[in-house]
Amino acid sequence: MQNNNSSLEEEAFKVRKLEISDKDKGFIQLLQQLTSCDSVSDKEFEERFQELSSYGDNHLVCVIEDTRSGKIVASGSVFIEKKFIRNCGKVGHIEDMVVDSSVRGMQLGKKIVGFLTDHARSMGCYKVILDCSTENRAFYEKCGFKQKEIQMVRYFI
Amino acid sequence: MQNNNSSLEEEAFKVRKLEISDKDKGFIQLLQQLTSCDSVSDKEFEERFQELSSYGDNHLVCVIEDTRSGKIVASGSVFIEKKFIRNCGKVGHIEDMVVDSSVRGMQLGKKIVGFLTDHARSMGCYKVILDCSTENRAFYEKCGFKQKEIQMVRYFI
Repeated sequence: MQNNNSSLEEEAFKVRKLEISDKDKGFIQLLQQLTSCDSVSDKEFEERFQELSSYGDNHLVCVIEDTRSGKIVASGSVFIEKKFIRNCGKVGHIEDMVVDSSVRGMQLGKKIVGFLTDHARSMGCYKVILDCSTENRAFYEKCGFKQKEIQMVRYFI
Repeated sequence: MQNNNSSLEEEAFKVRKLEISDKDKGFIQLLQQLTSCDSVSDKEFEERFQELSSYGDNHLVCVIEDTRSGKIVASGSVFIEKKFIRNCGKVGHIEDMVVDSSVRGMQLGKKIVGFLTDHARSMGCYKVILDCSTENRAFYEKCGFKQKEIQMVRYFI
């Protein structure tokens, strides 16, 4: 029975690429749990979606939809930076990881990180990096990451 | 006299965009002071250069050439990440900052950071970020940055 439940859950919480229809499934509301994100108009969303799509595999936004409720409950993105160092190497940057507060503890964050990490590896990156708060360090360590540097920021607004 | 010397120095150490001919001016050798970067063939360099050029203002590599010696003595890059959060906001990512060991103490690093920061601001970013070692924190604080998060990394090779 447990196996059946697990596979049902597996089915209901698959990671997939962001689709344009996800705006109507609560994608922006999910992002609001992460940081400030006022209402985005359909036009703004569509323009940004098309812009990111034009980068192909160099910028991937993925989501988990709870197919039972039709709501987007987790998301994250990775973009591929092209460098000259490391023999014209590439680095994956993971950004904007968020899991809906109602489904935390179901390992959905780990699924998203795994999906994005696999994508960076398949794109030929020599490493994948992300910035997080010290509170989230233990989570990313479980995902195979190690702390390395510090992040510095300068805000314009 | 000091003013004349200063303006001569200003003239000799201007920040400009990377040019394809900079490979013959020691650009790759400069990057080798930063991290592992074996010899890059002319073809590899040209391909990466063209690829980055195709991103237009979304990926900028800048350099300082010592016009007296014809050598590239400092470099840094910034790319503009497009997000959905912050009302479809943009973030500048500064990467691969390096100043030739022979010209340290001449504020060339600050010049490069200023150039890249100004570019991110002019592109409409709401912030600019970078990762650095704790040893370099004080330098970036002088450039107007503040420590915020920690960087996590997972290497593939």
